[in-house]
Amino acid sequence: MIEKALALARAGRAQAEKDFIEELSIPSVSSLSEHRADCRRNAQWLVERFLRMGMGAHLVEGDGYPTVEAQWMGRPGAPLFTIYGHYDVQPSDPLEEWKSPPFLPDVREGFIYARGASDNKGQHMACLKAMEHWMAAGGPPLNIRFLIEGEEEGGGPVLPGLLAREGDRLKSDYTFIADGTLLQLLTGLRGVLYTEIEVTGPAKDLHSGGFGGFSPNPFNTLAHILSALKARDGKIGIPHFYDAVLPPSAEELGSWKEFPITEEMILRMTGAPALEGELDYSLPERGWARPTLDVHGIMGGFTGEGTKTVIPARATAKVSMRLVPDQDPQTILANLRDFVAELATPGTRTKVTALGEGGGRGLLIDSSHAGIGAASRAFEKSFGRPPFLVRAGYSIPVVADFAKHVDTRLFVTGFGTEEDGAHSPNERLGLENFHLGTEMVIHLMQELSEI
Amino acid sequence: MIEKALALARAGRAQAEKDFIEELSIPSVSSLSEHRADCRRNAQWLVERFLRMGMGAHLVEGDGYPTVEAQWMGRPGAPLFTIYGHYDVQPSDPLEEWKSPPFLPDVREGFIYARGASDNKGQHMACLKAMEHWMAAGGPPLNIRFLIEGEEEGGGPVLPGLLAREGDRLKSDYTFIADGTLLQLLTGLRGVLYTEIEVTGPAKDLHSGGFGGFSPNPFNTLAHILSALKARDGKIGIPHFYDAVLPPSAEELGSWKEFPITEEMILRMTGAPALEGELDYSLPERGWARPTLDVHGIMGGFTGEGTKTVIPARATAKVSMRLVPDQDPQTILANLRDFVAELATPGTRTKVTALGEGGGRGLLIDSSHAGIGAASRAFEKSFGRPPFLVRAGYSIPVVADFAKHVDTRLFVTGFGTEEDGAHSPNERLGLENFHLGTEMVIHLMQELSEI
Repeated sequence: MIEKALALARAGRAQAEKDFIEELSIPSVSSLSEHRADCRRNAQWLVERFLRMGMGAHLVEGDGYPTVEAQWMGRPGAPLFTIYGHYDVQPSDPLEEWKSPPFLPDVREGFIYARGASDNKGQHMACLKAMEHWMAAGGPPLNIRFLIEGEEEGGGPVLPGLLAREGDRLKSDYTFIADGTLLQLLTGLRGVLYTEIEVTGPAKDLHSGGFGGFSPNPFNTLAHILSALKARDGKIGIPHFYDAVLPPSAEELGSWKEFPITEEMILRMTGAPALEGELDYSLPERGWARPTLDVHGIMGGFTGEGTKTVIPARATAKVSMRLVPDQDPQTILANLRDFVAELATPGTRTKVTALGEGGGRGLLIDSSHAGIGAASRAFEKSFGRPPFLVRAGYSIPVVADFAKHVDTRLFVTGFGTEEDGAHSPNERLGLENFHLGTEMVIHLMQELSEI
Repeated sequence: MIEKALALARAGRAQAEKDFIEELSIPSVSSLSEHRADCRRNAQWLVERFLRMGMGAHLVEGDGYPTVEAQWMGRPGAPLFTIYGHYDVQPSDPLEEWKSPPFLPDVREGFIYARGASDNKGQHMACLKAMEHWMAAGGPPLNIRFLIEGEEEGGGPVLPGLLAREGDRLKSDYTFIADGTLLQLLTGLRGVLYTEIEVTGPAKDLHSGGFGGFSPNPFNTLAHILSALKARDGKIGIPHFYDAVLPPSAEELGSWKEFPITEEMILRMTGAPALEGELDYSLPERGWARPTLDVHGIMGGFTGEGTKTVIPARATAKVSMRLVPDQDPQTILANLRDFVAELATPGTRTKVTALGEGGGRGLLIDSSHAGIGAASRAFEKSFGRPPFLVRAGYSIPVVADFAKHVDTRLFVTGFGTEEDGAHSPNERLGLENFHLGTEMVIHLMQELSEI
């Protein structure tokens, strides 16, 4: 059976690319209201694809864009395998930096260029095509459910609500979050605590000529606060910030030693004159297992062209922290609040607000379950090598939602690379990776059925 | 003669208010192009007023709004006295905060409310009415020139160009810059050095989840730089910053001891929980004779609503310094540039740009000349007390222009108070101050002629 599915995949590459291009042509930008109809059209397009291959499929509605749920329960008694993806994409601006229009997919030198190529249409299309070939080959060796949501890029409520509400019904043996990176299997994610730090001083904007020698200046005070939050050597100054940080496992550290990342590579990716951060830790640790703090923007005062000598009534910084297991966002928020209040100058007051509901914890993903081995073997059989154990420096909210609400064994990987420019102009996916990804999923279904 | 002029002033208060209201009704906002015709109309209105009272008057044109020049040379051999004012006004936004429309002057409880009431129409109208009464009384006892420009609020080139070009012709014995504060005679002005401090790090915006542990963050570095520029105790950290600072004169310090300013008053004006700055100096010293540094705004990164975890390629702060005699803006700019470069973190580069042509020096105004005594006696005879010797914390570019290009003895005072809200909604002028101001100028002309 698997041989037939694989043969169909190999013979069907041209058709697979056509299907892929068809979905990429739908500008399903969930954050822009002018694309509302496109998002719905993409959801409907997926439902039709699943129905056409003989699966059950419908839209799960909610307060936003629907989640596509599709299932095939043709192997009573066999494990149930869930595949997650999302059909919505990032906005395509800045448009002028695209070499070909973002929603007119263009194939150049082995890559397909379009918004959503790697994030996430290429990934779920590989899974969808794998399923299609298995169906044409008599059905996969286990039961399958797809959940493809339409609000990943904006963090909408429909899928999280579905998981929270129907977690019991949606329980499955294995869940593949097909929104990761090629040949990388996630063992952990950082969480995030995103805050606004507001400093207020004078009751109204003042003129620095008249009041420069008397008035507190919220910007100057904010500079003192921000410089105390993170020292020049990258160490974060919030009291007790590092207390709960767990070191990586020995298995992770082993895999990380092999992981092909060098300072030169990161220098090239950032374009910075030098790297900064905790130089006393290895690169994978700094990227995945150590918490960080960054300022993203500062609001208030005068930011127009030219000169205006205002001492503003307030200045507000957007500051986020990447948290690792077992740092507790609430504890850190409380410590941050106290610390910032202590750092206020006599003429200022501070307020620390958490955005995004107080932040998400970092997460360890159990990497000892048999699904990990199956995925590893499927990669070996398709791409020719086992994946690295890695963590993500960012948070993937859906992973946390699955971990919290659904009884399942998760694994997170994918078929795009970091160079594919997920949220950037000229997003792309390697066509070979797309096709081998399809074969990987065909193998994965087989491997999971044999555990 | 002076008795007749004073009697005319006292009898003509109602008419003077009508004239004042007529000029205030012209929305001569020089920075808004939709008021271009209004500015010209105001200039023409002034020319007609001067002609009507028997003076010579014309418009001096240039690349912007004209300066009104009027003169009366009826006392050959007597001194020449120049009066400076400006007919342009600040924009009136935020409009919704005005209790009466800014260009429909309204009299309430002894004040006239309108944009320009104190800055500067009330001030030059008092001078104009004084001249009118003197002319009706047979002519003032000395020669008079008015220069009323139309670009003060925007810092336009017409009057500075005129002074630079025709400084010789415009030389006069005394010049009254009628754009100061009631019962205050200026002995000095602070200069200003306005800069933008740019920090660059990564070549493009990065995602903090992926690069937070590696990439320099221009905002975090900027916070370290800004906090080193001014310490929490108000001391400025730029090397050699205070080296050239001149202490105030004994005469100034004597007058400042009497000056009615208290911490409570400044607290009330600022609305801040506490004052900051160099607490080891007196309030007048902090406001006038000590240099300061303020951050006005910070650009770059993400400042929208909600959360975006960007590490931006650049962050730029607007930072200005108020300079006192004899600090040299160019020396300070060079020291600032070096200091900021030293403070850069390894992955960042800095650039310091001076805006406004590299900054203006602080200025001491000679307060030993006889005109100061004349102004002092004129205040005693009209307002019943001599003025304080003060400095301004801000710069008044026209004072620097006169000092540089015109051979004259300057004095700077006026008839508005700090509570009159020069650049704020509900700008006003006390009507009694307007009328006594007119009498002060009548006395002043007499006093100057008797030196």
